[in-house]
Amino acid sequence: MMAMAAAARARTSWPLPKRCVHVEAGLKKAGIVLPPPGAPKANYNMLAWGPGGMLYLSGHLPITTSGELLKGRLGEGGMDVAQGYEHARWVGLNFLATLQKELGDLDRVEQVVKLLGVVNSTNTFTDQHLVVNGCSDLFMQAFGDKVGYHARSAIAANTLPLGTSVEIEAIFKVKE
Amino acid sequence: MMAMAAAARARTSWPLPKRCVHVEAGLKKAGIVLPPPGAPKANYNMLAWGPGGMLYLSGHLPITTSGELLKGRLGEGGMDVAQGYEHARWVGLNFLATLQKELGDLDRVEQVVKLLGVVNSTNTFTDQHLVVNGCSDLFMQAFGDKVGYHARSAIAANTLPLGTSVEIEAIFKVKE
Amino acid sequence: MMAMAAAARARTSWPLPKRCVHVEAGLKKAGIVLPPPGAPKANYNMLAWGPGGMLYLSGHLPITTSGELLKGRLGEGGMDVAQGYEHARWVGLNFLATLQKELGDLDRVEQVVKLLGVVNSTNTFTDQHLVVNGCSDLFMQAFGDKVGYHARSAIAANTLPLGTSVEIEAIFKVKE
Repeated sequence: MMAMAAAARARTSWPLPKRCVHVEAGLKKAGIVLPPPGAPKANYNMLAWGPGGMLYLSGHLPITTSGELLKGRLGEGGMDVAQGYEHARWVGLNFLATLQKELGDLDRVEQVVKLLGVVNSTNTFTDQHLVVNGCSDLFMQAFGDKVGYHARSAIAANTLPLGTSVEIEAIFKVKE
Repeated sequence: MMAMAAAARARTSWPLPKRCVHVEAGLKKAGIVLPPPGAPKANYNMLAWGPGGMLYLSGHLPITTSGELLKGRLGEGGMDVAQGYEHARWVGLNFLATLQKELGDLDRVEQVVKLLGVVNSTNTFTDQHLVVNGCSDLFMQAFGDKVGYHARSAIAANTLPLGTSVEIEAIFKVKE
Repeated sequence: MMAMAAAARARTSWPLPKRCVHVEAGLKKAGIVLPPPGAPKANYNMLAWGPGGMLYLSGHLPITTSGELLKGRLGEGGMDVAQGYEHARWVGLNFLATLQKELGDLDRVEQVVKLLGVVNSTNTFTDQHLVVNGCSDLFMQAFGDKVGYHARSAIAANTLPLGTSVEIEAIFKVKE
């Protein structure tokens, strides 16, 4: 139903304006391959539509192309900012996969509006903002500065579902 | 003022379309009695209206019909997933009570858009998503799959206001 | 670009309706001086526009007029509710500075819609809601009860970026 509505929306925006296919082409050129779109871990949807083309994406996790869920707590077990950054980048790739599945075409994204990034952290780790950059930087790379720039919060949690290292939720403004 | 505006909105949607009174009737049939609508614990409102019928509900807590605030940290003191699930269900019942007070009629809810569930957790508890299902499952039951399905994030916190076990905030799309 | 768009919007709402200049005048009368508008700590914007005049403000921190970032964990090192409240008030002042820079005129704020306040807390601290009142009370004072009232969540985190004590994100409805 959701997928059908999305397909209908995709059709109405055909033929694509010149800007389209830029995002997917840019990802390909940069050698970025999206993981398969994820599935909910419990009784919810991966996203919900609000009015005005606002798309609310559920908390996404760092899942690799092979389906491995990345775990760990920043500040222990060798988890440093660089590794957390990579995990947050995987979250971003999972967002892109969800968006592509729903929208058909990533060029329909008009604005990355807001991210809330939650970083599994020891009590003394205080670089959550640098970890969440892994997702923000990917969005800048994928969508460009104008569309990719967003409001953002980065906070900590003492633990996260399934022991994952980073969970991020996002709001996008898309062409309906 | 807020209440008057809501009453005015309720009136304008009269006579109710056929679908209406389904939600309340369904709750009654399932033997679900809503607790009295809650009050803010500090200087804020229980909800705020955004444009386009978006209704932002404040962080709600698990308060029983008798007014008891449910407390505890998941992973200690005997608090397991089953008990946390029940607490999250109470949060959901409190949301329904707030919505009914504001909207007059729960059938005005067009979409449960998004939940952010925060679970009071020990460092080793990692089933926050299963706990928050207590609220999600209630919404599916109350509103049905189409209206009840939502985007969602479930995260942890090492403590919560007043020692409560679960706090959830929500966005609903409602008929204005 | 963002700033130019904001300037354009500011111009179109000129001449200002009678209500305008009330907020700034009220702040001045109360002896409140806003700190300089802040800058992002990582790769994101301080805010993003959504449709319908919705303005999403990034997680803001308690930074004083002299540029000092206030740190600490509630419940230890002498950090009590009163001190946390003051920190949350500084977050509110930073929000006002960001809004003034973007909007030109704080009277363009039509509604403080929602706050999510995250309080750096020891495991036994449970007064996050009283801490976040520091920001909520400031908004009531600045905008008045009608515009200032908002939905809100107050939660805890075991740590926060840069060791800060309070991080708050906010949604405002503004005159476009």
